[in-house]
Amino acid sequence: MTMRPASSPEEIRRRNLAVLLRHVHRDGQVSRATLAERMGLNRSTILALTADLAAAGLIREELPGQTGKAGRPSLVVRPESDRVYVVALDVGADRLAAARVGLGGSVLDQVETVRPTGTFDPGDVIDTLASMARGLIGGAAGDARCVGVGVAFCGMVREEDGVVRYGPNIGWVDVPFGEHLTRQLDLGLRVVVGNNANLGALAECERGVGAGLSDLIYLHGDVGIGGGIIMGGQLLGGEGGYAGEVGHMVVNRDGRPCACGSRGCLEAEAGELGLIAAAGRSDPPGRAAVEAIVEAAARGDSTARDALHQVGDWLGYGVANLVNIFNPSMVVFGGVLREIYLASAAQVRSRVAVESLLAVRERVRLRTSSLGGDATLIGAAELAFADVLTDPVQTLTRISAAGE
Amino acid sequence: MTMRPASSPEEIRRRNLAVLLRHVHRDGQVSRATLAERMGLNRSTILALTADLAAAGLIREELPGQTGKAGRPSLVVRPESDRVYVVALDVGADRLAAARVGLGGSVLDQVETVRPTGTFDPGDVIDTLASMARGLIGGAAGDARCVGVGVAFCGMVREEDGVVRYGPNIGWVDVPFGEHLTRQLDLGLRVVVGNNANLGALAECERGVGAGLSDLIYLHGDVGIGGGIIMGGQLLGGEGGYAGEVGHMVVNRDGRPCACGSRGCLEAEAGELGLIAAAGRSDPPGRAAVEAIVEAAARGDSTARDALHQVGDWLGYGVANLVNIFNPSMVVFGGVLREIYLASAAQVRSRVAVESLLAVRERVRLRTSSLGGDATLIGAAELAFADVLTDPVQTLTRISAAGE
Repeated sequence: MTMRPASSPEEIRRRNLAVLLRHVHRDGQVSRATLAERMGLNRSTILALTADLAAAGLIREELPGQTGKAGRPSLVVRPESDRVYVVALDVGADRLAAARVGLGGSVLDQVETVRPTGTFDPGDVIDTLASMARGLIGGAAGDARCVGVGVAFCGMVREEDGVVRYGPNIGWVDVPFGEHLTRQLDLGLRVVVGNNANLGALAECERGVGAGLSDLIYLHGDVGIGGGIIMGGQLLGGEGGYAGEVGHMVVNRDGRPCACGSRGCLEAEAGELGLIAAAGRSDPPGRAAVEAIVEAAARGDSTARDALHQVGDWLGYGVANLVNIFNPSMVVFGGVLREIYLASAAQVRSRVAVESLLAVRERVRLRTSSLGGDATLIGAAELAFADVLTDPVQTLTRISAAGE
Repeated sequence: MTMRPASSPEEIRRRNLAVLLRHVHRDGQVSRATLAERMGLNRSTILALTADLAAAGLIREELPGQTGKAGRPSLVVRPESDRVYVVALDVGADRLAAARVGLGGSVLDQVETVRPTGTFDPGDVIDTLASMARGLIGGAAGDARCVGVGVAFCGMVREEDGVVRYGPNIGWVDVPFGEHLTRQLDLGLRVVVGNNANLGALAECERGVGAGLSDLIYLHGDVGIGGGIIMGGQLLGGEGGYAGEVGHMVVNRDGRPCACGSRGCLEAEAGELGLIAAAGRSDPPGRAAVEAIVEAAARGDSTARDALHQVGDWLGYGVANLVNIFNPSMVVFGGVLREIYLASAAQVRSRVAVESLLAVRERVRLRTSSLGGDATLIGAAELAFADVLTDPVQTLTRISAAGE
C-alpha cells in the first residue's frame, strides 16, 4: 500500500520549534512543564527545543517568582521581547499609527499622527509611515532585531502582494502599497499588508476580549466601518479575500450618501459622518468629533443624545443582520465604534433583540475591544510575526542573510 | 520524542474504503485506473478495496461501454444504486416531499404533497412523512437496503438531536422532530435533520451548479427565504449551527411585517408573500401563485411586471449585502427564488452592481439551481448517506444488526 513518507526528524524539529515559540509568544511566560504537557513531548525534548530557541535569541529561561509551592520550581520560558520585535503600522482614515511590538505581544514604543480625513496621497502616506518606522527602529537597542513589518489598512487589500484595491475613505484604487513601502523602508523585509478590521478580529481572538472564541465578528469604526469575521476559528476571506465589507451593507435604502457611491450603507448611517450629521454639527470627522458628541450627551445635551440614539438604532440593525447571518458567539466594537457603542448600548441591544431570531442571538455577547484603539495595530504586529512563528530558525537565518 | 502512533493497517483500510466509495458516489462511474491515480494507491490495493465494497453490496464492477480506444479497457466501478438507497424528506412551508435516492445520487422514486401554507401540526407532518417514506420503501426491490433517512427542514434545526428550534412559517418552536420521526418510522435508523437551505448549498456544491466551488451562497425561497453559506469549502454554522438566516436580514426598516415579528425582512419583501402583495393578488402563497404572476408578466400584465421589478430590487439589495459581506464566487437561487430571479434578473443584477463594491463582486456569478426544486431533497439524501460514506462496512454491519 502506498503511503506518504513520514516527516523527517528535521521537519518534526522545525515544526516543534514553531509550536513552542507560538505558545511562548501568546502566553508571555510558560513553564517547561506546561509546554511538555501541552505539546505532548517529554522534558528532554522540550529542553532541547528551548535550548535551540534560546541560542537563536528568541527566548530566555528564568527561575519563576516566588510561588509559595514547595519543591524545585520548573524554569519558565519567556519571549525575548526587547531583542526581537516587529514594526506594526496602521493606516486609518483619520490617523497613521506605528508601534514597535516585542515578541510576546508587548507594545514597546508607539507613535501616532492624527490627520484630517479626506483623500491622502499614497506617496505622502508612505513617506510618513517610513519615517515613523525608522524613528522606532532607531530607538531600539543595538542588539535588537526587527523580524517583520505589518500594516493594517482601512480598505480592501489583496494580501498576496499588498495592493490596496479600494480605500473609499482615503481615495485609493489599486495602489501597489506593500511593494512601494517595502522599497522605501529597504530593511530586507517584505512589508505585509492586511485589512484593518480583519487584523483587529485576529488580535481580539488571539489576545483580546475574544480570546479562545472561534465565531467572532469585529467591527472597526473610523470614518468607515470595517468588519473582520472569524468563523470556525478561520478568518472569512471569500473568493478573493475581500469578505467582511459590512460597512457597505445597505440598511436604509433612502439614507445618507456613502463614499462608495451608494446610499444608506451601515457606515454612512452609523459611522462618524452619520453621527456628526445627526448631531447637527460640522466638525471634521475623527475621534475628537465623536468624543465631543458623547461628552455633550453625557452633560445632557438633547441633540447629542438623540443623535446617539439614532445612530445606535442603525448600528443595531446592522448588528442584528450580522447576528442573523452568522450566529456568532461575540460581536466586538473597536475604533470609534467602541465609544459610539458605549454611548448607545441600550439602543443597539434592544434593536438586536427585536430584529434577530432567538436561536441565533441567545448566546451572543456584545463587547467593546479590550485592546482599545490598538486592536488593528496589534493585529498588524501578529501579521508581521507570522513568518518567525511559522519557521523561527529559517526566518532568522534569512533575515540575517538579507541584512548583510 | 513522543509521537502519535501510526494508523493501524485496519484503520487505513477503513479510511480508504470510505474515500473510494465517496469517489464512486460522487462521480457515478469511475475506472479503477482513475481511482488508483486519484487516491495515490497501486492497482492491487484498489482491486482489494473494490472487492471488499462489492462483497458488501455497495458497488459493482463492469466493462465500460465502447470507448473507441485500443487495448484492454479498465473495469469501471459503479454504485449499486438500486440496491443501496436512502430516504430523503423535505419539509417546506408549502409542500412535503419524499424521495428514494440511490447510492450515486440518482433519484429512484419521488412523491410530493402540496399543502396550504400556515401552521402545520407536528404530529400530522410526522404521520404524513412516515407514510410517504413507507410507501417508497415498500416499492423498493426485495434485496434493496435503506441505509439512512435525512430530512431538509424549512427552519432552524439543532443538528445533533434534530430538534426544530424555530420554523416561523409553519409555526413550530422547539419540536423534537428528529426523535419523533425516528420512533414513528421504526427502521432501526436515526433520522437526521438539517436546515433546508444548508442542505441545498451542500447539494449544489457536491453535484449542482456550484460543483467544485468553495465559496458559495445558496438562497432557497418558499414562503420564507433561507440561506446556506459555504466558505472555504465549509458550511457556515456559527456558534450554535444556526447561521444563514439571511431571510431575516432587514432591508426595509418600514417595510412589510414578517412572520418573525419584525418588519422589512428580506423574505417579507422578496419572498412569495411580498410578490403576491406587490401584484395586488390574494392567492394563497405557494409555487403556483409565483408561477401565475411570472406568466402574467410574460403576457404583458403591467401590474405583474411592476411587482416582479419591485421584488427583484429588494432581492438585489439582499444579494448585494451578502456579496459585500462574503465575497462569494457564486450565488445560487433555488426553490421559488429560481422563478423569481429568472423573471427579475436584470433588476437584481443592476442593484448588485450599484450596491456592492467592485472587488467583492468582480468575479461573482449569479445562477439558478441546476437541481431545480430538488436541491434541498438531494441535500437531505447526502445527509442520510453521511454514515455509510464515512465508514461503509461498519455502518452496514450496524444497520444489519439493528434490522434483525
